[in-house]
Amino acid sequence: MEILKQRILKDGKIKEGGILKVDSFLNHQIDIHLLDEIGQEFKRLFGKEKITKIVTIEASGIAIACMTAQYFHVPVVFAKKSASKNIDGDVYKAKIVSFTHGNEYTAILEKRFLSSEDRILIIDDFLATGKAQLGLLDIANQAGAVVAGMGIVIEKGFQGGGDKLRATGYNLKSLAIIDRVDKDGVHFRESDSV
Amino acid sequence: MEILKQRILKDGKIKEGGILKVDSFLNHQIDIHLLDEIGQEFKRLFGKEKITKIVTIEASGIAIACMTAQYFHVPVVFAKKSASKNIDGDVYKAKIVSFTHGNEYTAILEKRFLSSEDRILIIDDFLATGKAQLGLLDIANQAGAVVAGMGIVIEKGFQGGGDKLRATGYNLKSLAIIDRVDKDGVHFRESDSV
Repeated sequence: MEILKQRILKDGKIKEGGILKVDSFLNHQIDIHLLDEIGQEFKRLFGKEKITKIVTIEASGIAIACMTAQYFHVPVVFAKKSASKNIDGDVYKAKIVSFTHGNEYTAILEKRFLSSEDRILIIDDFLATGKAQLGLLDIANQAGAVVAGMGIVIEKGFQGGGDKLRATGYNLKSLAIIDRVDKDGVHFRESDSV
Repeated sequence: MEILKQRILKDGKIKEGGILKVDSFLNHQIDIHLLDEIGQEFKRLFGKEKITKIVTIEASGIAIACMTAQYFHVPVVFAKKSASKNIDGDVYKAKIVSFTHGNEYTAILEKRFLSSEDRILIIDDFLATGKAQLGLLDIANQAGAVVAGMGIVIEKGFQGGGDKLRATGYNLKSLAIIDRVDKDGVHFRESDSV
């Protein structure tokens, strides 16, 4: 997605350890018009998949999922990262190791919001090692839901998670795939999936 | 906001301790069309306030803030609830005691995303004791930003936080104010603010 790549080149910042910061437009401050374009692009990519729900995980995935859901006219369900007083009843659970935060947490989603009748689109801002996505796939499998697509805004191709998911057969589309980050900046994959 | 109140009566659930669960449409599963109506209502209420940014706190506030921001054509900035590898540079910090989670956390917002040139609209899904809102006000004060409005979806009037904020002079509007919950169900404030 060209306008996204241009924005990453213009406003993205590379930190030590290969961390790309896009917090001025994607996951701390949010450019709502860019997210609207992203939502339309996901509709173009997955619009024929008869999606019944969009599934993501808190926190920054929620913004993208909502802007996308407007074009699909379906509900969003987001997995929560910790148990609170407000979670009760039967829940699906999946353990996830966070690359960003360097810790492990449990993703929780109430069973009544996902079932074997659902065809879901999993949406997230980043895909790196794929741990968060595997957690959501685990939850989808527990529910018996069909994973009709996975839409990622920025995939860090050099961390390998996306290619593993594609090899497994998932219909994964990333709007920008970064294959290398060096002193010259960000290098996108030429033959990206979209 | 009548369609919101009707939805609370239809799908809200009351748990022990006065906790209202609206997780089937507001903060776990999200009815994107209802949120779009909510965004339009906030635009009607605060549209003349020359808002430059919409400020909220993760996680469920993000969805409402984004749907609202579309109508204001301004960025969203959300405060984060814990320090991660991705937070660096100068940040505003505020300690917040969570009624829902029963713990204390630090809200963090990078300084470059909020300044004395901003006129902000604070958006959140719930207002109870007002602790989360006071944290965001603290951050706004640190930035020197003008708080031109506070838009809340559901205010628990019986917990008093909203009335304290109004008494302090904030331009607070809640789309539904609940004054009492008993065996007969949810009772809304008749003369609510909107």
